[in-house]
Amino acid sequence: MKLRVRSELVYRFDPPTDAIFQIHAAHWPAQKVLEETVALTPATPFRLDAAAGFGTRPLQVRLSGEVTVRYEALVDNGELVDLSPRAVQHDWIDLPVDVLTYLWPSRYCPSDQFGRFVERGFGALRGGARVLAIVAWLAANVDYRFGVSDSETTAARTFIDRAGVCRDFTHLGITLCRAAGIPARAVSAYAYQLTPPDFHAVFEVWLSDRWWLIDPTGLAPISGLVRIASGHDAADIAFLSTQGSCDMVRQAITVEAA
Amino acid sequence: MKLRVRSELVYRFDPPTDAIFQIHAAHWPAQKVLEETVALTPATPFRLDAAAGFGTRPLQVRLSGEVTVRYEALVDNGELVDLSPRAVQHDWIDLPVDVLTYLWPSRYCPSDQFGRFVERGFGALRGGARVLAIVAWLAANVDYRFGVSDSETTAARTFIDRAGVCRDFTHLGITLCRAAGIPARAVSAYAYQLTPPDFHAVFEVWLSDRWWLIDPTGLAPISGLVRIASGHDAADIAFLSTQGSCDMVRQAITVEAA
Amino acid sequence: MKLRVRSELVYRFDPPTDAIFQIHAAHWPAQKVLEETVALTPATPFRLDAAAGFGTRPLQVRLSGEVTVRYEALVDNGELVDLSPRAVQHDWIDLPVDVLTYLWPSRYCPSDQFGRFVERGFGALRGGARVLAIVAWLAANVDYRFGVSDSETTAARTFIDRAGVCRDFTHLGITLCRAAGIPARAVSAYAYQLTPPDFHAVFEVWLSDRWWLIDPTGLAPISGLVRIASGHDAADIAFLSTQGSCDMVRQAITVEAA
Amino acid sequence: MKLRVRSELVYRFDPPTDAIFQIHAAHWPAQKVLEETVALTPATPFRLDAAAGFGTRPLQVRLSGEVTVRYEALVDNGELVDLSPRAVQHDWIDLPVDVLTYLWPSRYCPSDQFGRFVERGFGALRGGARVLAIVAWLAANVDYRFGVSDSETTAARTFIDRAGVCRDFTHLGITLCRAAGIPARAVSAYAYQLTPPDFHAVFEVWLSDRWWLIDPTGLAPISGLVRIASGHDAADIAFLSTQGSCDMVRQAITVEAA
Repeated sequence: MKLRVRSELVYRFDPPTDAIFQIHAAHWPAQKVLEETVALTPATPFRLDAAAGFGTRPLQVRLSGEVTVRYEALVDNGELVDLSPRAVQHDWIDLPVDVLTYLWPSRYCPSDQFGRFVERGFGALRGGARVLAIVAWLAANVDYRFGVSDSETTAARTFIDRAGVCRDFTHLGITLCRAAGIPARAVSAYAYQLTPPDFHAVFEVWLSDRWWLIDPTGLAPISGLVRIASGHDAADIAFLSTQGSCDMVRQAITVEAA
Repeated sequence: MKLRVRSELVYRFDPPTDAIFQIHAAHWPAQKVLEETVALTPATPFRLDAAAGFGTRPLQVRLSGEVTVRYEALVDNGELVDLSPRAVQHDWIDLPVDVLTYLWPSRYCPSDQFGRFVERGFGALRGGARVLAIVAWLAANVDYRFGVSDSETTAARTFIDRAGVCRDFTHLGITLCRAAGIPARAVSAYAYQLTPPDFHAVFEVWLSDRWWLIDPTGLAPISGLVRIASGHDAADIAFLSTQGSCDMVRQAITVEAA
Repeated sequence: MKLRVRSELVYRFDPPTDAIFQIHAAHWPAQKVLEETVALTPATPFRLDAAAGFGTRPLQVRLSGEVTVRYEALVDNGELVDLSPRAVQHDWIDLPVDVLTYLWPSRYCPSDQFGRFVERGFGALRGGARVLAIVAWLAANVDYRFGVSDSETTAARTFIDRAGVCRDFTHLGITLCRAAGIPARAVSAYAYQLTPPDFHAVFEVWLSDRWWLIDPTGLAPISGLVRIASGHDAADIAFLSTQGSCDMVRQAITVEAA
Repeated sequence: MKLRVRSELVYRFDPPTDAIFQIHAAHWPAQKVLEETVALTPATPFRLDAAAGFGTRPLQVRLSGEVTVRYEALVDNGELVDLSPRAVQHDWIDLPVDVLTYLWPSRYCPSDQFGRFVERGFGALRGGARVLAIVAWLAANVDYRFGVSDSETTAARTFIDRAGVCRDFTHLGITLCRAAGIPARAVSAYAYQLTPPDFHAVFEVWLSDRWWLIDPTGLAPISGLVRIASGHDAADIAFLSTQGSCDMVRQAITVEAA
């Protein structure tokens, strides 16, 4: 699917601070970036490399005062498909070495604490069927609601709160999959038909020798996702990380079929 | 320095379980593995690749019953040097893209919570001098003691407990460095002259365009470390991770000058 | 029911330390202590008063070296009955002022975090029926198992772990009841027919103008409980609290019908 | 000191909810309530008893829609004095039985985790001198700042954050005192000369056979405090607790010398 994505981020950095934006469409085998522009106002030198292995392209920069970052791209995201219930869960011996790190707990995904819950609730299933059962459990037991979680909320807390936003659904989904021995990681994305438009957080699992994208909120079709960053959890894929605080002035995201 | 390292791990896996051992000396530019053998008894097929970029070589295997894993290697670890107080802290724009992930909080290192403490205590310093001040603070404020922490202990808890083992010192050191905007990651190692002999956990920081190893416990000389695995924290570098539980029968590590 | 209860606690206190034992049968309207002896070996002066309002009788003492505390009592615990599903939940305006504190979260019972879960799962019920549904949920979703929890385990963690011992069941039961607006508190007890014999932790809820005892583990009949202490949670009702650490040498509890 | 205190709380309760206000000056031996009025608009029946032993007078009520609660009182708070460094710390055997509960950890004051820190930092002192050293440590190491903490912040987190408001200072002060074996509890108060005027949270410790009030923020003189409620921590002394949420419309507090 061809999509035109735009983000305009206006933030105030005072005092000057180091910042990393992750807003560029990823370089990813199935996803082609056909056109792309990025502009900082006022003009500021930045660095833009692609992270080895998974194509995330963080924009590294040092900013001062009020800054506008505009990114626009035309992207062909390939033919994204929904997870098959028949996707096969691998023994660990069959996992590529660079996938192993996504088996372990991370800042917001303490999967080491959920082994018993996962075994009890989903132990009779394996692979795609197990992941789909986990996603169905999330849909039935967690409410999509603003104002319950914040930037420190872990999956353990969302499991108690039973409410959160896309980031929280993603963290809990990842946590339960890892607890089941399935590699899972967070993905940030531009999402077609997401209302209201915003950066979206989804996750992906490694089954049948490939990554499969999943939107545990069910708010956006998989086929309309433009991948930005992937990593262990929100700590790795934030669209903006800074050393010290900054203030949002305004922010706008648009995603259109092209 | 040339070192001969041996580890013998005897564990019981019942029922059969997926396991990952990280006990092989890393492939790392300054470290040469001159000879190496690994043997599983009973003989069991395994997989051994090197993780892209940082040379960790996890042994992936599925095990059943009582299993002995023996690893022995002759390693030249190069000329490891202690962190210089003049090592320079980089603006984020000057960090290699693959180093960025070590700025963010991880499972055991919630560096997002320590910004104020680090600014208050170490804000007047930068770079190597700041890291050395952090290490000195650890030595003055945290006791090396068994029995206080366990496999779930985070750096936040160690900051309160004021006691722990090498893993806890490492987690708190990493946490404080990341909170100061310095990339930091965990490293497991064979350690010459460590008493009692065991796998050791240390950390390394990225300053002056390279990684510098630090032993926050001060128990082993840097020059005698043989690097095994590196990663965000103990979740990434465990010498043994399993899906489900297993029981240790016995374990022995030796490190000798060769 | 008339019961003869005995506890023999042998602990080592080194260096000398302040200690509080809560092993005396409570003075409680429906419970009569018919005979009672307590002996410390070596003989040590102690203090024994009854706490206002709920009859807990902590034994306050300063101990040194190895000490044996023997308590024996003949108690008529009255006619304890199981919670009725028709017991009425009160509006807060109808609660006695001294009961109010058992509405609030405590060290091991963070009920402030469980409002949404309780509303979602038990919102259609009130009073005794609601509490019984909570207890049934515990029975269906939490395993009685040693070794999962420790002295720091909160109800939030047990909710994730899905396993624990009597203390953990009690904490989670209290937490869910308080989250539902029902006063609930922890009670320690000698328990007839508990296997293996030990101090038992149960809880009680305030409905229909009285406290109702509940054993969320289902391990001991309510009619055979001899009340010792009551309080917010395990922090209040521990059979032994010390300033500093101490070591158990041995401990034995017996409860017999008399 | 004679003080005239007023509070006007306007809140919206929708749907109808159970509520408890703790805004009445306490009945406390040294504090005399000379005049007092309370009014709810619209008029609503309420219950007002004094809690046994420590004179807190919660107002129990069920409210619906927008409600104004006005409380006004003329109070002689006696002659409150600052903690003496010579106040004596008691062995536990010398503590009144009803004071014991303030030795234990509570929701926001996990004192069980701070034994090592307190021993290391304040182990050479006892009694009033130890408490004053703890308060001095708070002043030197914690910033008074809005926006860092929220209603769930524990003393463990404030110890890491190194910032908070009166409630957080109070929780950390209580925590460190309890970890040192000194009974400590939270007290809410009207505070003369507090800027901006608001409900204030302070704490008190039991030394030399009496409670001593302490304002760890140093923002208000002890002599100008009008005691409202006391309890384990903020969970017990909140000026407003509800079953379900409510919205503040406005709130005003005034305290004047009379």
